[in-house]
This record gives sequence, C-alpha cells and structure tokens, in this order.
Amino acid sequence: MASASTGGRVSCGRDLNCVPEIADTLAAVAKLGFDFLCMPLFHSRFTREFELDPAKSRIGAQTRSDLLLCGRDWNTLIVGKLSPWIDADAEIQTERRNSEAALAQELNFSAYLGLPVFMIPLKGPCNANLARVLLNHIHTGHHTSNFWIRVPLLASEDMREDLIENEPITCIDDTSVDEKTWSWWHSFRTLCDYNKRICLAIEVGADMPSDAVIDKWLGEPIKAAILPTSIFLTNKKGFPVLSKAHQRIIFSLFKLEAQFIFTGTSRHTEKDFRSYLQYLEYLNQNRPAPNAYELFAKGYEDYLQSPLQPLMDNLESQTYEVFEKDPIKYSQYQQAVYKCLLDRVPEEQKDTNVQVLMVLGAGRGPLVNASLRAARQADRKLKVYAVEKNPNAVITLENWRFEEWGDQVTVVSCDMREWAAPEKADIIVSELLGSFGDNELSPECLDGAQHFLKDDGVSIPCSYTSFLAPLSSSKLYNEVRGCRERDKDPECHFETPYVVRLHNFHQLAEPKPCFTFRHPTKDMNNNRYQCLKFTVGCNSVLHGFAGYFETTLYKDVTLSIKPETHSPGMFSWFPILFPLKQPISISRDDDVTVRFWRSRLLCHPQSGRTLLHHRPLNMSHPPAGTHTHMFL
Amino acid sequence: MASASTGGRVSCGRDLNCVPEIADTLAAVAKLGFDFLCMPLFHSRFTREFELDPAKSRIGAQTRSDLLLCGRDWNTLIVGKLSPWIDADAEIQTERRNSEAALAQELNFSAYLGLPVFMIPLKGPCNANLARVLLNHIHTGHHTSNFWIRVPLLASEDMREDLIENEPITCIDDTSVDEKTWSWWHSFRTLCDYNKRICLAIEVGADMPSDAVIDKWLGEPIKAAILPTSIFLTNKKGFPVLSKAHQRIIFSLFKLEAQFIFTGTSRHTEKDFRSYLQYLEYLNQNRPAPNAYELFAKGYEDYLQSPLQPLMDNLESQTYEVFEKDPIKYSQYQQAVYKCLLDRVPEEQKDTNVQVLMVLGAGRGPLVNASLRAARQADRKLKVYAVEKNPNAVITLENWRFEEWGDQVTVVSCDMREWAAPEKADIIVSELLGSFGDNELSPECLDGAQHFLKDDGVSIPCSYTSFLAPLSSSKLYNEVRGCRERDKDPECHFETPYVVRLHNFHQLAEPKPCFTFRHPTKDMNNNRYQCLKFTVGCNSVLHGFAGYFETTLYKDVTLSIKPETHSPGMFSWFPILFPLKQPISISRDDDVTVRFWRSRLLCHPQSGRTLLHHRPLNMSHPPAGTHTHMFL
Repeated sequence: MASASTGGRVSCGRDLNCVPEIADTLAAVAKLGFDFLCMPLFHSRFTREFELDPAKSRIGAQTRSDLLLCGRDWNTLIVGKLSPWIDADAEIQTERRNSEAALAQELNFSAYLGLPVFMIPLKGPCNANLARVLLNHIHTGHHTSNFWIRVPLLASEDMREDLIENEPITCIDDTSVDEKTWSWWHSFRTLCDYNKRICLAIEVGADMPSDAVIDKWLGEPIKAAILPTSIFLTNKKGFPVLSKAHQRIIFSLFKLEAQFIFTGTSRHTEKDFRSYLQYLEYLNQNRPAPNAYELFAKGYEDYLQSPLQPLMDNLESQTYEVFEKDPIKYSQYQQAVYKCLLDRVPEEQKDTNVQVLMVLGAGRGPLVNASLRAARQADRKLKVYAVEKNPNAVITLENWRFEEWGDQVTVVSCDMREWAAPEKADIIVSELLGSFGDNELSPECLDGAQHFLKDDGVSIPCSYTSFLAPLSSSKLYNEVRGCRERDKDPECHFETPYVVRLHNFHQLAEPKPCFTFRHPTKDMNNNRYQCLKFTVGCNSVLHGFAGYFETTLYKDVTLSIKPETHSPGMFSWFPILFPLKQPISISRDDDVTVRFWRSRLLCHPQSGRTLLHHRPLNMSHPPAGTHTHMFL
Repeated sequence: MASASTGGRVSCGRDLNCVPEIADTLAAVAKLGFDFLCMPLFHSRFTREFELDPAKSRIGAQTRSDLLLCGRDWNTLIVGKLSPWIDADAEIQTERRNSEAALAQELNFSAYLGLPVFMIPLKGPCNANLARVLLNHIHTGHHTSNFWIRVPLLASEDMREDLIENEPITCIDDTSVDEKTWSWWHSFRTLCDYNKRICLAIEVGADMPSDAVIDKWLGEPIKAAILPTSIFLTNKKGFPVLSKAHQRIIFSLFKLEAQFIFTGTSRHTEKDFRSYLQYLEYLNQNRPAPNAYELFAKGYEDYLQSPLQPLMDNLESQTYEVFEKDPIKYSQYQQAVYKCLLDRVPEEQKDTNVQVLMVLGAGRGPLVNASLRAARQADRKLKVYAVEKNPNAVITLENWRFEEWGDQVTVVSCDMREWAAPEKADIIVSELLGSFGDNELSPECLDGAQHFLKDDGVSIPCSYTSFLAPLSSSKLYNEVRGCRERDKDPECHFETPYVVRLHNFHQLAEPKPCFTFRHPTKDMNNNRYQCLKFTVGCNSVLHGFAGYFETTLYKDVTLSIKPETHSPGMFSWFPILFPLKQPISISRDDDVTVRFWRSRLLCHPQSGRTLLHHRPLNMSHPPAGTHTHMFL
C-alpha cells in the first residue's frame, strides 16, 4: 500500500472501526479489491488507565498478538488508527496524562509492528501537546512509518456550533468557517516543524468548501483522501456516483497520486461494496488526458534541479539531445528567421542579397538547421556562422558541416564575447534564455556580441521579460530543506533558485512582470531593481516565488512559459522557484511585497567569467507584507 | 551495461581497437550476444599536437559525431578507451604536455557523450600526473561516469624486463614480481584518494600469479575482467575452454559481480565468437551453488549496518521475526537445555523435581518455546519465567501465554537487572550476544541477573569469546567514508564498528581470540585489555579488523560465526567491522599489532543505562606494526 497509483490503478483502502478477526477481515477486504486496511490497534473502547489502580496493575495482553499476521503484511497492508477517545490536549489533567500515555503506547506499538502509516485525527484547533508527543516520538527510535493527519475539508455542523460556543480565546482568529480546518492543519504542521513524515489525509464530506479554499488544500501534502459512503449519490441504475463538485476534487487528487480510503457501511445494499471501487476506477480511467507538456514532465513533479550554467559548464550531448526534441521552440525560431528574412530582403533582391546570420551558442546545430530551413522557405540567400564555445559540441558542428552544410556554414570554436568576427551580421540568433529569462546571462553574452551586429541588424530574440508569483507549498519547502549539503553553509540551499516542475503548490496571486531586456540596446547596464506587490485575499502561508518568462523572438513570434500564455506543447523550460528560508504566515488582508535586485555579484575565480548567482534573502516580516531580495 | 549480473546472466562486453562504422559495429556485437562495446573515442593513431603549428590550427572535426548514436546508446552501451599513445607521465616535457592536453580532451569528450565508463590503462609504476589530471577532472563538472583502471594481473615478460632495466629509482621497492602490478594499482588509487568512481579492470593473462596474490586482488574493487582470446585452450571438439586455475578466478569474479570484456580476435575460427560467451555462461550456470547462509546474505554484501542496541532501543516485531527464522540457533538452544535438564534431574526425580528456568530477554518467545520443547524431549518438569523489558514484545508473550503456554509460564514485563524475582532459578537462558560477543552488553545484563541464579545454577550460554583478524578492503573503507553524517563530528563514523556481511575484502591473517566472558562468575569486572600480533607475510594495506565470536551454550553445544568454525546455516549474525581512519601500508616483513580495550565509557543520560560504545582509535604507524584501541 506504500506506493500510490502512478497513472495506473488507483490505490484504495477500507476503513473499519471494529476488526474482530484480523486475518479473515484482511482477506475479505482484499477480495473486494482493496489494497490496504485502516484499523484501530487497540480496542476502541479500551481506555487504559495508566496511573490508577486496579487498572494499572491489570495483567494480560493489552491488545492482540502481532503473530496474527506476518511481518510483511503488517508492513505493507495495515494503516493503524489512533483510539478515538485519546485527547492529548484535554483540559483536565488526569485525562490529558492518561491520553498522553495511551498515545505513546499506540505510537510505540505501531512502530513495533512496522506499520507503514499511522493515522491521527485532528478534532479541533488546539493540538500543541499532540504535536509535541508525536514529534518526540519521530525523533527517538529508528522506526520509519509515516503519519497521516486526518482533517475534514469542512468542519461539520456540530463542530462549527461547538467551535463558536467553546473555542478557547487563544485559538480564535478571523478565519472564515470555510478555512477553519485548514488553519487547524497549518497550525499543527507548523508546530511539527513541517516534518516530512507528517502528511495529510483529508476527509471529504457531503458539503464542500469554495473552489478557492480547495485550491489551497491542493497545495498541501495530501497523501490520502477519506471518502465516507454517505457522500455518494445513487444513479438511475442504483449505482453509487459522485456530484460534479466531488468529481472535480477527485480528479485533482488523482494528479497528486493520493490514495483513497472508504469509510462507512455500504449504502447501496443491493450492490456489492465493489461498486464504490469500480466507480472510482471509472473516474480514474476517464480523467482528462495529460497534454504533451504534462507527459514530458511526468516524474519531474516537484523535483528540484539546479539551473543550468551553460556559460560556466559545458553541456553534455544528452542535454542538447533532449532540448532539440522540443516540438515548438525551433519551429518558432524558424518562423522568426523566415519573417525577418522577408522583411529585410525584398523579392527583387532574393538572388543578390546574401544575409549574414550568426548563431551565437550553436550547440549541436538546431538553430543553424532552423535558419537554413527558414531561408529555403523564404527563398532567400543566407550565409551562416555557427559560434560555439563548447569544444565537444564543435565536433558535432564540424561533422554537420562536413556531411550536410558545406561552405554555406562556417563553424567558429570560440566564446562569442571574444570572437573577432570577419564581417558584421544582419541577424544574430541565440537561445540563451533560462527559466527566469536572463538567468543564464543572455544579456551579458549578447551585449558582448553586439559590436559585430550591423546598425540595422536584428537580434532573435529581440526582448524578454521575467515574471514572479507568490506561492505556498509545504512540499517544495521541504524539498528545498532536503537539499542541505555537508561542508556547505547550513542555509545556502535556501539562497539559490531551483528549476522545478511546480506541482503540489498553491499560487497565491497572478504573476507580475519583473525585469525586461531588449537587444540590440544602447544601455549596457543590466542591473535591475523591481518592487512587486501582490494581493492574496486569503489566509495562507508564503514559501517562495515562482518565476517564469516570456520572450519575443521577432514581431509576433513569441515563446512563453508563463502559465496564462504558455506556448502549447513546449517543454524546454520548467518554472524557476525562489524559496524562502522561513515560511511566512499571511492573513487575508495582508499584501505581499517583494523586492528583487539583479546585481553583478562576483567574478568566478577559475574561469574569469561572470558567475550567475541568484540570492533571495529573507527579511523579517513587516506588518503588512514581505520583502525578498535577489542578487545576480 | 551499467548493471552487472546478479546471479543471473553474466554481463559481457567486446573490446575493439578499430571501429570504422559505430552503429553497424554495435549492432553486430549485440547480435553476437555482447552487452556493451569498448572502443577508442579518437582514432588510435591520431596523436593531436596541441601546441605545434600547423596541427594546432588544423580545422575539421577531431573525431566522429555524437549524432551517430542516440544519447541512450552512448549512455548505456559504450565504454570509452583512452588512446594508447597518451602518456601523461612521460619524461619528455613536450610529450607529457601534449599527452595531458589529449587526456583532458578525451576525458571531456567522454563526459560530453555521457559514457557510463571510461577505461584507462596503467602501464608502469609511475602514474602521479595521470592521477592528478583524472582526479581534477572528477572534481570539476557534473558528469557521473566511472573510470575503470586497466591493470594486468601479472606484468608481461616485456614489461618485466623493461622494469628491471628502466624502472626509475624512486618507484622501486622490494615487491616481488608477482605483486608488482598490484603495487601500481595501490599507488595509483592512493594518489586518487580512494575515489569511489575509480575502479579496477583486471587483465587476465595466460600466466597467473600465486593464489595468495590472487586473494589480494579479490579484496580490490574489481568491476571488470579483461579476457584475451589468447588465454583460452581448445577442447577436443574445438571449443574454447579455460584452465582450472583460470576457472577458479572466474568463479571468484562471478561472486564480485564483475563484468567481462573479451579482447583479441577469435582463435577458434571454425567456431563463432559466440562460443567464448557460451563457455563463460556455461561456467556461470555451473558455479558452486550458494549455501543457506550465502542465500540469506544475498544483497547484504558489504552493506554496513549499525549494531543493534537492544538494551537501549526496543526491537521491532519484524526484527524478532527474522531472527526467529534461524534454522540452527534455537535447535542448539533446545539441545543445550535438554542436556542440562538431563544432567540436573535424575530419571527417578523426573516427576517431582520441577526445574525453574528463566528466559532473560524473552523477546517474542522463541527461547521459551525451545525450553518447553527441550523439557518435553527430556521428559522433565519445567517452570518458566519469561522476562522481557520491551512492552510491545510483552503483548506477544501475554498472547502466547493465553493461547498456548498457560500457567507453566509466567510473563514478567521488566528489565532483568531490576526484577525482584520471587524465587531462584536453576537455569537462566539468554540470547544477548552481538557479532563481537559482548557488544550488546550481555556481561552487564547477566551479572545484574546473577543474584537470582541458584549457587549451582547454570547459565546458557556459559561462555563466549570474541575474535579479531586484520583485513584489507578498499570497498569497505569507502563504504565507511560514505557514512559521514551532517551535524556530526567529521570523523565519528570511523569511531564506531559496523555489522556487515564481509564480501569484497582480503583477510590478512587468521583470527585470534580477544576477550572471553563466563557465567556465572565471581569477577564482575568486565573491563578487558588484549594485545594481538598478526603476521601478514605480504605487501598490503590495512583498512580495519574483522570481528567474530564463538560461544559455548552448554558443554559441547556451541554456536560460532568465526569462519573456520561457523555453525552451518546459521544466519543470525554477520561479522563486525572495526574500521581504521587512514589505510596503513604494510610491507611483507611488518607485523600488525593491535591493542583492544573494553572500558565502561559513559552512562546514557536519557535512559540511565550503560551505553554501548566501541571506539577503535587510529594511532600513528610505528615502524613494525600498528596499534588500534577499542573503548567500550
């Protein structure tokens, strides 16, 4: 049960409160098609009294023997549940102490059995003592199980009334009823220091919160969803089905590879319990098909990569190979060169005017080929220089020239900034953009090459703009925390951006433009400063900023990785993430203000080249907003 | 090709020096049944001149295009070979510089292609500059390929003559001719700081070194063996076969999961080249079958585990489950209790004399069951106390008592050292031994329980002895280096022993006894000191000590994990490894002296219990021997 569905079958479990015969029940549940069983470890009504006689000296086994299942079954098929009477945050001291002892006993027994998961419910806003005991348990011992914290998407009517009447003053805030249970969870996981082994099992009720609140939940580390049989409707043929709103959240949960847990008795008695599973599998088979980009990104979700530094490191053959497969990028470049050639060379000069085109950073030659195709398409004459600093890729270019291109192309093994060009170019074509536009130092490289562009010459691309959006994602926050390296400053993994297919996250506002660069340009100062203000409009927690870019190759020919304008099917760039060192809580009325600098920071001692260096710095949280810096 | 055979098929490659058409050759070689191809990346005779005109400004491709294969093929099917003319340690400066430049070019191009492995030959004793350039290459860039250093098992006749005539004074030592090439390798990998990506490809010749020298090689990280077709004999039917001596080394290489590389032309022309592969596969199918212990240990070879600390940590159900499956241990315990009962109770008292047996550390009950079986087998009356401090395991014991044992067994949930026993025992039975005998604190636990053993009472086990042997293993040395943890002292992973199935290692001398403990005893001082001296008798390098134990349960009933006396089929204990921080070179005339202390070191602040703490400390290397300390 530890592995969730990965596009294949959905993994489903059965939740039971009473399991008299464990091996038989497990077999029966497996026969119905369930992958795992959720059950209490101790009898639900056995409220042990650890400090009171005669209970404390009672002999006999506290619960059933581990020998009833083999270790492998405990290890893979059983999710343990905390006894429902345990309330580690009870106000009455004897009740609290007794609950603490029983909680420790159940956590220890779960670890002893080697259960993959132990499930703990949150029933209200105050869970500080529960968090303390759980975190202490995680930090001692060598067990490796995960914890699913069970939280209802919406507090029940009873809970809501109860809250209004009985909520202790300290726990009340201005959270709307919709967001109430999210704040329970947020407070609990914050007390647990975002521990990676503490995940979320959301309980889906008949009533659903607003779409905005659901989006917020989808930024949380949801490992499981609990589906009571009572939320199912009955279709004409008597089968269980879900409302459209419920279907939507199920589809989103499929994307997060959540597991599903069915609770409650079968309400469609003439049908077998299998019909619930079959309906979920039916939804799974009919989920919206992934597009080309999603297919390419499969397996890279929330996986942090260091941005390429092609100026400092020579790329590998396979890296070029992957990018060359992009179905969109090079056809857009071809289109841009095509339009540019038609603009620059009138029909009557097509046999006499030879345009000089220089590919700056030719790699293994895809832009050379796109340019040659554009010239044939436009029926114009072209002379190409392919400039490349990577001596390994130059071997590929030389072989292209020998086998295919002939004298129309000159291969130049040189850094574009150091090349003494034999003539000036009509068009320079480059693909030096990173996920945040300028972050692979395109401005510096093209400025260095501008002197061999004719005065009326064209740069493809001619401009690019980066974009920023605030985001919340405990998954990504934890991934960044996990990047800490031995022998390095203990916080430096927070002071660098990451290229990542953002997946389990909640974008808190629409992206806003940050820095723009144009080529050719008179202003060679590429330092930038930008202050952006975002209105979030809900209670949330800020973990960082997503970065995107848009570029104009030539006139109306563009490329974009900003979600709203993303070039369909283009996969060459994932977004970039600027993480924050400390999550920052945001109230619904706060604005988020971020200040970004692009600064020439230092020279790399070995290569003598400008080192790319993004550093978002996290400052103290001003009353109504946040500040973040970025140095280049 | 990156994955070696794991008991299944053997992975074999074809070595070629000239590959005119790479895709065709690769297809042809695959059709013959090879898994990969070893080939030069640059034309073998193309000695580039990087500093001389006109060569240095010659245009055109330096070698073939990477586009001739897809990235995946480069990545999985091709082993690159360094051009044979390159000599980075040449004495003539221009030759050395040119070799350095070509070496860097080939290393970079190999990384560009993403080859899984690049092969570099050692041709003599002096390779310092080669090591420097290679290590520098590994430390820069993000490539991940491995390096196979090709070393002949025995220097060829030419080489040997050459060595005697031309060997520079600084590189000569008293190494015998047999060990010559091992010292090339040892010196090279030491200069490369035991880098994990630098492995060994041994070249097997027609002549073989002595068995002792072969054993030494088998302690090295051999990833591949090169088999020239010239070493094969021809059997009556005209098929290629190997001599018995060659077969023996092949069987050893199978155990190390080495890959094999065939070099040279087919010398059995009437047969296909396939017959070489078929013969190797025939040997593979007919290798000696693994015994029960080897089968159990499969996958654990050279895998370091922290020794259990059952006194401090409560074991998990699955840990008990695995140990309970040992086919030998509990039948030996049953035999020991059986013999002891017969000795203590004469036939005429069998219905009146009820022996009191206490199982100290009963776990989930296997020793209770073994004792009850022994009593039935001996037809003697028995009353059993099952004492266990792990409250989770006590639940299992209570269930056993309720379901099976009844009143014959009393379950006691208590630490044996704190238990106020209601009566004295005739026999105490325990299984508290670790891989080094006393290292799970058996002496301290049993001393603490001795006061409730009758004066003529028996402890099973009644004695145990640890053993030590010096070993050489760069694999294990590197595994220990890899255990370094963030947030801990940078050397503390060297100051602790590891439980490990020793595999890719060379034991330098027979084990010698270290510490002995007996129960019951009058002398409760469990501190020990032992000085052991080993004669190694060959040039080698010391990386640590292997630890074993033997125990007498009762009279002639014993258990042992010392290789020479190992209880057949018993898998409950792997050996223990005490690593050294720095490898220590040993000359054939050196003795290895090791001093071991067992000292009560500290009290664990949390539990108030004695903390187990082995600390082998590495001292400076005295002229004729080494010292190592162990603190408990």
